Amino acid sequence: MANSPDAVTTQQVSALPHVVIVGGGFAGLATAKVLANQAVRVTIVDQHNFHTFLPLLYQVATAGLEPADVAYPIRTIFGHAPNVGFRHGQVRAVDHQRSLVVLDDASEITFDHLVVATGATAAYFGIPGASQFALPLYSLADARRLRNRLLLSLEAADALPEGSSPQLNYVVVGGGPTGVETSGALAELIRIAIRRDGLRIDESKVRVILVDLASRLLTAFPPSASAYAARELTGKGVEVHCGRSVVEVQEHAIRFSDGEQIDTAAVIWAAGVTASGTLAYDLAVTPGAGGRARVTNDLRVVESANVWAVGDAAAVPLNAAEYCPQLAPVAIQSGHHCGQQILRVLRGEATQPFHYRNKGIMATIGRNEAVAKLPGGIIIRGRAGWLAWLSLHLFYLIGFRNRLRVMINWTWRYFDWPSGPRLIVADAETVD
Amino acid sequence: MANSPDAVTTQQVSALPHVVIVGGGFAGLATAKVLANQAVRVTIVDQHNFHTFLPLLYQVATAGLEPADVAYPIRTIFGHAPNVGFRHGQVRAVDHQRSLVVLDDASEITFDHLVVATGATAAYFGIPGASQFALPLYSLADARRLRNRLLLSLEAADALPEGSSPQLNYVVVGGGPTGVETSGALAELIRIAIRRDGLRIDESKVRVILVDLASRLLTAFPPSASAYAARELTGKGVEVHCGRSVVEVQEHAIRFSDGEQIDTAAVIWAAGVTASGTLAYDLAVTPGAGGRARVTNDLRVVESANVWAVGDAAAVPLNAAEYCPQLAPVAIQSGHHCGQQILRVLRGEATQPFHYRNKGIMATIGRNEAVAKLPGGIIIRGRAGWLAWLSLHLFYLIGFRNRLRVMINWTWRYFDWPSGPRLIVADAETVD
Repeated sequence: MANSPDAVTTQQVSALPHVVIVGGGFAGLATAKVLANQAVRVTIVDQHNFHTFLPLLYQVATAGLEPADVAYPIRTIFGHAPNVGFRHGQVRAVDHQRSLVVLDDASEITFDHLVVATGATAAYFGIPGASQFALPLYSLADARRLRNRLLLSLEAADALPEGSSPQLNYVVVGGGPTGVETSGALAELIRIAIRRDGLRIDESKVRVILVDLASRLLTAFPPSASAYAARELTGKGVEVHCGRSVVEVQEHAIRFSDGEQIDTAAVIWAAGVTASGTLAYDLAVTPGAGGRARVTNDLRVVESANVWAVGDAAAVPLNAAEYCPQLAPVAIQSGHHCGQQILRVLRGEATQPFHYRNKGIMATIGRNEAVAKLPGGIIIRGRAGWLAWLSLHLFYLIGFRNRLRVMINWTWRYFDWPSGPRLIVADAETVD
Repeated sequence: MANSPDAVTTQQVSALPHVVIVGGGFAGLATAKVLANQAVRVTIVDQHNFHTFLPLLYQVATAGLEPADVAYPIRTIFGHAPNVGFRHGQVRAVDHQRSLVVLDDASEITFDHLVVATGATAAYFGIPGASQFALPLYSLADARRLRNRLLLSLEAADALPEGSSPQLNYVVVGGGPTGVETSGALAELIRIAIRRDGLRIDESKVRVILVDLASRLLTAFPPSASAYAARELTGKGVEVHCGRSVVEVQEHAIRFSDGEQIDTAAVIWAAGVTASGTLAYDLAVTPGAGGRARVTNDLRVVESANVWAVGDAAAVPLNAAEYCPQLAPVAIQSGHHCGQQILRVLRGEATQPFHYRNKGIMATIGRNEAVAKLPGGIIIRGRAGWLAWLSLHLFYLIGFRNRLRVMINWTWRYFDWPSGPRLIVADAETVD
């Protein structure tokens, strides 16, 4: 095996075994990083030419960060690995017989090994109107759309004649980390827009409501952390409605199980995830839970020798009874493991089972407030939790420049300087 | 007159004379800055909630800067001036009789003084297909659209089977500063995409062609500067075609006056400007040149006592025979002058004539290469010209954070680090 970058030149690459990775998220990139500068040819296929750092999307949606702060060109990430290429496009189908994938433009790419890392998207649980009218937060496009909707709703309220300030209700559905983070940041955005940007909106007529079916927020954390999050959010002006479910979403309204219906300026959907698209689902004869691909413990799709599934697209076994949670660390670890197993197979060695190493979970509530659960159940909260969260996110952010940009943006916000990027970019896009 | 910020509170503002400024470009902002914290109420109306720093748009189009680097929220700029407000919308008509403007949503805003600062847009000179198929560079939307077109054309060429690299022709029409800057940056972008991002494109099959009807580039500069620009661009791989005119633009081709027709991956239009929209044109009984409003020497629209026009929207007299050029310094100076004259009129004083103070002109050709013409005809070029250009642009950039971000981006590009924001964001937008 070649272990140094110089060992593989572009000339030699085309004769090497071809690994096609579908999806440039955490899992796909982790797989590719293992295979970079090894004796394989790698092609990452993605409909976007950039990786999106999903944990910070809510910051783009609430105008704290710019799209470029959380997106990074895939070609640039592997600029120094001559054996890793990129193909801009979407995979439509897998032909197991002929060992090839078919793209949306009908072109075909043959593979020796295929890694399906197509990720997750919002789950609507069949709630009427949810997929049509609620705004999810699973792509850069989602984040931009949500930001534009939020800012335009505030501008529209401002434009009304003096004294006719309308009721503005923003409902966030889902009390997990995404819902908690988004509702907290949204309350901050609205406060800044009114108090500092001078929008003529009656603050008492603006509500941010966080709804969850469960009896408490952040159910993956212990109850004390949930109570802390609820208290902090309430302090920011968020109304926390636990034990309440949504039965219908309309264009400008939401209806709850208790019969109450309220008008809405926006409904943000953070209620759960399902595998993205049908590619993973279609892979195996027996599909896995939540539209995910069923995989054996080495991460190969069941009944396949050279097709693998990783990250949110795979139902990764945690133990005999459970699957791994759909989290970024699982995506990264499973992608890494998959890359190593492909190298083992190519060397004629037996594969090893995947074991998830729990690194803890985190949720941020606002500046200075976060909660982290470390392995062993240790809870960190407040400023220490926030710093832990910040360090972890900056560590994961790919590329020094992105880290620097995000650090600058956050420093600014932290010190409350009046220059957040509250641009309504949809404006610009509707011109054409 | 109140001269300190404390002298005017939000309560008192509604009773003050109302100045409505249409357009948040250089001219409109300069007017508003004079009127900020004075005894007037100011409303800036714009279809975008941000100011766009037009001189750097070509950097966004060629993936050197992000949209947020050249855009700044108007509300934030005047966050500390309680008498300056913002209205998100587009002005459809002016009712001189009733002293009000009508917006696109049919709402009306009455004014005591109206300042038309609606700026300029691309002029197509009636060349068939130009307005339909050529890509202008006069708004953030234009820049994003152009960037996506450029990057997608490169990805599409890369996706073709090995050995079938197509001819890619990029034609920039117009040899003024915008055309020179854009063609130079485009040649750099393509070189980076091929050499560093590893796109499988035969570099010898990519042409960047800069066309101008005139016999030399940068006709506002002396011939030696034109020769310098042509030499530098040629060194970057740009083909400079002077004395050549375009007779037709098609979807994927361009036709020249000498009969030659070539296929194109993109045609970029930097050939000239005309006033944006028809608002300025419709203002006066006798419209001015190039769709601009005719103004008297105090910048009032002819035959009007309380309607003013500034910047690119106005045919600003330079002397008895000529108009001022359509440049950023003219916009800023005329806006500033207009604000002062409105204050004079409100104080019952006579207005003063506008005099343009020539501060020089500049064009950049690439990293380390720019040419500047100072008052008196002094020419600076090379690294000194580039540093002069950089300082001037950073000086004009509104807001410290934007300056810092742009400085970081430029420093990175200067040292050739592999992390330019080459994101194809259109991708994301076409999802919905």
